[in-house]
Order: sequence, then C-alpha cells, then structure tokens
Amino acid sequence: MAPTLFKETLTVVNVGLRGFADDIVAAGGRCVALEWQPPAQGDREGGWALAETLAHPDVDAANATALARFIAANPVLIDVSAARDVLPGMAGGRRLIVHAGPPIAWAEMCGPMQGAVLGAVVLEGWADSVDAAERLVERGGVDLEPCHHHGAVGPMAGIISPSMPLFVVENKAAGNRAYCNFNEGLGKVLRFGANGPEVVARLRTIAATVAPTLRAALARTGGVELKPLMAQAINMGDEVHNRNVAATALLIKRIAPALIDVDRTRDDARATLAFIAGNDHFFLNLSMAACKAMCDSAAGVAHSSMVTAMARNGVNFGVRLSGTGERWFEAPANPVDGLYFPGYSIADAAADLGDSAITETAGVGGFAMAAAPAIVKFVGGTPSDAVHHSLRMRAITLGVNPSFTLPALDFAAAAVGIDARKVVDNGVLPVINSGIAHRQAGVGQIGAGVTSAPMACFTAAVKALAHGIGGKRGAS
Amino acid sequence: MAPTLFKETLTVVNVGLRGFADDIVAAGGRCVALEWQPPAQGDREGGWALAETLAHPDVDAANATALARFIAANPVLIDVSAARDVLPGMAGGRRLIVHAGPPIAWAEMCGPMQGAVLGAVVLEGWADSVDAAERLVERGGVDLEPCHHHGAVGPMAGIISPSMPLFVVENKAAGNRAYCNFNEGLGKVLRFGANGPEVVARLRTIAATVAPTLRAALARTGGVELKPLMAQAINMGDEVHNRNVAATALLIKRIAPALIDVDRTRDDARATLAFIAGNDHFFLNLSMAACKAMCDSAAGVAHSSMVTAMARNGVNFGVRLSGTGERWFEAPANPVDGLYFPGYSIADAAADLGDSAITETAGVGGFAMAAAPAIVKFVGGTPSDAVHHSLRMRAITLGVNPSFTLPALDFAAAAVGIDARKVVDNGVLPVINSGIAHRQAGVGQIGAGVTSAPMACFTAAVKALAHGIGGKRGAS
Repeated sequence: MAPTLFKETLTVVNVGLRGFADDIVAAGGRCVALEWQPPAQGDREGGWALAETLAHPDVDAANATALARFIAANPVLIDVSAARDVLPGMAGGRRLIVHAGPPIAWAEMCGPMQGAVLGAVVLEGWADSVDAAERLVERGGVDLEPCHHHGAVGPMAGIISPSMPLFVVENKAAGNRAYCNFNEGLGKVLRFGANGPEVVARLRTIAATVAPTLRAALARTGGVELKPLMAQAINMGDEVHNRNVAATALLIKRIAPALIDVDRTRDDARATLAFIAGNDHFFLNLSMAACKAMCDSAAGVAHSSMVTAMARNGVNFGVRLSGTGERWFEAPANPVDGLYFPGYSIADAAADLGDSAITETAGVGGFAMAAAPAIVKFVGGTPSDAVHHSLRMRAITLGVNPSFTLPALDFAAAAVGIDARKVVDNGVLPVINSGIAHRQAGVGQIGAGVTSAPMACFTAAVKALAHGIGGKRGAS
Repeated sequence: MAPTLFKETLTVVNVGLRGFADDIVAAGGRCVALEWQPPAQGDREGGWALAETLAHPDVDAANATALARFIAANPVLIDVSAARDVLPGMAGGRRLIVHAGPPIAWAEMCGPMQGAVLGAVVLEGWADSVDAAERLVERGGVDLEPCHHHGAVGPMAGIISPSMPLFVVENKAAGNRAYCNFNEGLGKVLRFGANGPEVVARLRTIAATVAPTLRAALARTGGVELKPLMAQAINMGDEVHNRNVAATALLIKRIAPALIDVDRTRDDARATLAFIAGNDHFFLNLSMAACKAMCDSAAGVAHSSMVTAMARNGVNFGVRLSGTGERWFEAPANPVDGLYFPGYSIADAAADLGDSAITETAGVGGFAMAAAPAIVKFVGGTPSDAVHHSLRMRAITLGVNPSFTLPALDFAAAAVGIDARKVVDNGVLPVINSGIAHRQAGVGQIGAGVTSAPMACFTAAVKALAHGIGGKRGAS
C-alpha cells in the first residue's frame, strides 16, 4: 500500500489536535477532524483516578442510591421565617452573614459580594453607614460563612443576614429542610452588590410586609408542593433558573385566593401580591430552595460521584459530591458569555457568581434549557442552542428526572444527576445559565448569559473519590 | 424510446390518484406517488370561479387592506356587563337567545345546543323546568339567532341569554366591540348541553359574584390589553384556544392586586379569584372575544377573500369572508378526531360545534399549535404534528402576525389571514382544535381533538366572490 498512499489523494480521520488536520488539508488531502481531548483535560493523575472510579461497582451502586433519593424528593414550601429563627448558626444574636459559593475571606471577595455584605450590615443595624460597616467587617466584627454550610442558598452574592426572611422548604420524602432568601426584583438590588438606602429600604419592606403576609397565606393553604409547580412551569417555557415567568404566575394563581383571606390589612395583601406579580424572577429563589432540598437528599452516600452542589463565590467555583461529604472542590470561576446591557461588556463583569447553579445541579436551569426557547432573548444564542445544551448534558448525567419533561424534545425527561466521572471522562462541562453582576460593588446587574463549570473542580473531586475507594492514584 | 420503455424497469412519478401508482408497483415498476387533487376538490364551477379571483388585483388589494386592519387591531377588555345591557338585540325585554355558528332553527339543532337553550330559558325564569322550557321554545316563544349576528361569540353551544354577563372587548384601533360569555369550567356545563339545577346555579353565581367583582377590578385597572397577554401566553405553551393555562395565570397576575382592593366583600374577592384560578380554560372566552374584535376589524372590505369568521352550530360549518359581508357559506360540519374520555367514542360525538373557531380565523388555536406542544395530551397527536399544523397553515394564509411568535419555529410569526382562494386552490383545509360534546343534551364534554373546516364552504365563498368582481362563472 505504501507506494499508492503518497500518490493518491489522502483521506484522513484526525482525532484530537486540529493542527494535524489543517496540515493535511493544506497539503491537498481530505480530512475529517474529530473533536477529542484526553480525559481530565490531560491531567495525568486525574486520568488515573478516573480509571479507578469508572465502572467501580461501589461507585455505581452508591450513585443509584443517591439518584433514587433525589428522584423521590418532594420539596414543599411550608413556611416563611426570619433567618435567625431557622438557621441555628445565627441563634443567640451571633453576627453571622452567609454568602454564595464555597468559603471565602472578606479580603478575597469580589466587588458585588463585598457590597452586598456591607448592605446587610447596615440592614441589621450593626453599623449606620456603608463606610462604618466596612470598618466593622475589616476588623472581623462579622462572621462570614457559605450559605451551603447552613442548609441555605442565595442567588448571586447570596447574602443572608439574621433579620432576612427565608423560604422554608421541606423535602417531605426525607424530612430535610432547605432555605433561600426572597428575590428583590431587578435593578439596584443587594444580590448584585448594590447597597444604597433604597436597597435597604426594599429589604425592610420585604421583611415587614411581604414575608409575614405570605407566611399567613401559607398557614391557610397548608404548604405549596414545588415539584409539580416547577414541572408545569417547565412545560410552559421556564427552565426555573433564569426564566421563571410561568412559575411565578402559577405561584400567584396558587396563593392569591389565600392572600385575600389572611388576617392582614388589604394594603398588606395588595402590596404583597403586587410585589410578587411585579417580578417575573420571584420564583427563582423558591426554585433554588427546592433544588437544594432535592440535592441534599442525595448527599452523603459513601463513594457516590453524583454532584450535590455547584456554587460560585465570584472568585472560585466549588463542587461537592455525594460521596465526599461537605468538602468543596474548587477552581477559578469562568467568565459569563452572554447578552450585556447597553454600555457594558465582559470586561465589566464579575466572574460567575451565586448559589443558583444549584438549579443545574438539580437538572433544571441550563440542563432544561430546551424547555425555555424564549430564554435565549435573555442569555443569548438561539432556540437550537437551548435544545443542544439539554441534549449535551445527557453525556454527563446518571439518569433522567421523570418529573421534569421537555416539550421541545417530545416530552423526554430532563437529564439529571451530574456524574463527576462522566464530566472528567467526556470533557463535557455542566452548562449554567447565570445573571451577570458588575465587578464593582454598587453597580448591579449588567447582563445574563451562559457559562460552564470548570473542569478542575471535577478532576479534583474524582481524585478524592478514588482515594476514598482505596485507589492508589487518588489524592486525599 | 418505445422499445426500451417496456423492457427496462419503469420509474414513474404519479400525480393524483394513488390507484395508478399501485398498479405500476404491482407490475414491478418503481413509482413516486405525489399527492394532488384538483382545486375545489373537483368542483368544476368552483375551479372556474377560483381562476377568476386568483391574482385578481382588486382581490389582492382588498386583502392587503383587510390584513393590515387585522394586524393593527388592539383588543382591550374594558368591561363586564349583562348581555341585555350591551347587545341591542336583547333590549326591551325581548326573549332572545343567541347560539354558536350560522343560523339554525330549533328543530334542526343538535342535542347539546338544544339542551343549552333550555337551560338558558330556565336561567332566565321564562319557564320553571326544562320540560316547560321545551314547550315554550317549541311554540316559538323564544327567538334564536347566531351570536355572530350580535357581535358576540360563544364556545361550543355558545348560548347567551339576556342575564348572562359578557366580557366587553374593544378594539382600540378602530373602536369596534366584541363580546363573549364567561367560561363555566369543565364537567357538566351549559356550553356542552348540560342544563341541570347545578348548571343553572353555577351560572347564577357567575352573574351574581364573579362578574360584578371582576367588573369592579377592571374599573380599577383601566382595562386589560389582551394582545400582549395572548402573545406572552403563546410564548408559554398556550395556543389560546384549547390550551389557556398560561394566559389564565397571566390574567390572574394582572388583576389579582386590583381584586384585593375592590369595594366588595372578601368572600366575593376570594370566590372570584378561586373561580378563575380553578379553571385553566377561563381565558378561552377572552381569547375568543379578542379574536372576534380583531376579525371584525378586517370585515367589510369589498372583494377581499380573507376569512373573517368560521363557526359551527353542531350541524353546519359556516364561513364569512371580508368581501361578502354578513353572508354565511355553509357545509355539513365534520366530526372531530381526537382523544375521548373513557367510555366514549366518535360514535357518541356531536359534530364540530361552537364559535371558538374564531381563534383559528385569527391565526391562533390550531394555527399556532406549534407553540403548544403540551396540547397534544388533550387533543391527540405528537408535538411534531403540532408543528406540522402550524407550517401547513402557511399555504392558505395571506401573511403572518408579528405579534404572535412561535418559539418552536425559532420565533417565526404565526400564519394569519385565511385566504379562501388558497384553501380552494391548494386543497389545504384550516385546522381547528376543538372540544367534543356528546350528541345528546345533558351529557356534556366527552373529549377534545383536531378537525378541519369543510372545503365546500370555501368553494361557495369563492364563487360568490367571483360573482362580486363581475366574473362570468361565479354564483351569486
């Protein structure tokens, strides 16, 4: 064959580096370039750890258990309560503020997270100005810990302080509870780092009016099952992360009759309903609490490679696995590619931020994007991209969630249960819809877009998992 | 060529009757069978009338005018009022009941329409039992006329009597008004021919509580623009005919704060909200009034072949064109193919019934079915069928409605403005989503499905249109 090989036109399949393919084409040959990269993006030890965990019967059995617990979860909104009354860490007047993502020190925090912390200090009355608040925090007068360490989640900066009302969501299948703060709406809001008087005033209104009125309505309705509501919204064009138009309307439909009956003034009832109806993102925080409750139900299964949390603090992206307990596996957070508001660009943006990636961890958000073609107007891309994201996530998940079906895929169930091994093996990164905050405190939201979780988190997690099953190559 | 023709294997394209193709294949040939049938389904005079109107400049110009008026229409829900107070034909205590579809005499009406008429007679107190009502109607004691003759529309039997509250929808672009009754919910309801005491009692509650409370709320909100609400619902999985889940929720979100403030008791406000929230089809009747207002704005343009009404009385299907005034072109209504409730089949069904085909006339319903993949669970078929229906309607329409976009088709605008000429020419029939009533009075709904308008209506309409432009072959 050798003599003819260099006489006839070459027809080649090239796997991996495109440079070889380009050379062949330049020399007059024909070449199909197949995209491929080594597992763990070439991290040699990660590759060995992967080999030790892949198809390991203990990991597979643990994953089946974790996924079954996740699928069985039944998150119900049962109450609204001040953070200090439901988060044990805030009991006894402790000056604790919790934030999004994995742990991070004050000095390392990104601009919007620092701005939000200071706004919360003023809200709590621990300082009477933002400047005074900054001095208090800098001298260590306030404890700062992740929301996730307290069973809670918060979008963007994710700041929760003791007086803030939280949604209390209970997984009726297992009894675990999860918490999330209230969505403030768009514009200058604490979660995007704004902390002016109008921001603090709005937070006070939420605590004084919206929260107790909603609490009273919940006492009448006896709780709101969130999974069927999310399922219906996903059949109505939401992915319940960055698009919550249907879910918010369905929530209103569910609770409005009870709101009329509550033992509050008409002004309170009207103000509460108008506040919810005025914010198409209102349901996001309920979706997050529901997803946290579902993911927590899958946590703590020894040897499971199922991802139970993905969260960003604006500097680092952190991942937790079911089989590695409360440990975080971190890597620098990616920037967010998307649609920026006029006058802003990616140069102005904070890195990927917030606990809201708990929705993708639970198989909605970017994973269910095929359900929400209209979201491309907010995060960029085309409806075909949205479908493609949902299909691609099937390559890195343990199964599907029969509760959440995607109309655009003939009602196929959405992919769920990220398997860290598959992420490392296939080089497909979890897709995440996200809001984009300005990197400086006080500016607020400047866009929304699509980003992905960094590979290094998953490689580190798989190494730890390999270590746990007695692998020789895994790192502790 | 002749000698080889019968020696080699035949490869044939067959146009029209499939029987020829079958013979060729049976004889060992290869054949592609192209579906085709002559215009007007072979009606010779219809074909000539079509030839005279097709590409006629007067018709094309008139259609452009009619479509532009339709697109410009801005239907707004401005009030709720008793039929007797807004329909001049019911003034002065006249015993008039209006019904769906083209005109039909009592003796010819289908079972569910007769049942609904009798229920309305009892509701009005013109008789104290259904039997007495029947005697009254049989001796001509009640006038029966089409809703459409009074600017109104009603789903299924479409019965409106003087005391019934109507939605008052005004097209703010042209000032014309349209009316529709309230949706009663599912189960045993008047529009499906049920007329027992519980049916009449529910109608009384609607008139006594729901209607005045909603009217008071509307007085506070200053009217609800229906087109943006429909547009948003169509981006949320509704086609605003047989699926109104999103539209109903969006309406609640829009009016609930005002409902809390109305000068009515809390019981009335709660009952009203609960009534609306308890019926995912509530918005259907508002959609119909909005569509009627839009279609009426396109009516009365001389020589226009644009369809401005399609309506069924359970026996005949009737069509009106913009260029032929208030004349109906009728043909026997088709049966409805769909999903039947357990225990029922097409043998139990009344023929296609109701004014709700005004939604398809306005380019939503079956025409926008690509927007509503979930509707196939209600009317049968697959999400692909839904997309196919929307695409096929492009063959018989004058243009698209930029207000109504279909996410599954990358936000392409929905086809709108049925051109009777194109229906006759292409043999593509307007697709209609529909509820299915039992053919006997008193049973109610037995399913839902998809049907089509009969060709003969459009052929007759085109003949009349040809006559109007001086055609020699058109029939008056």
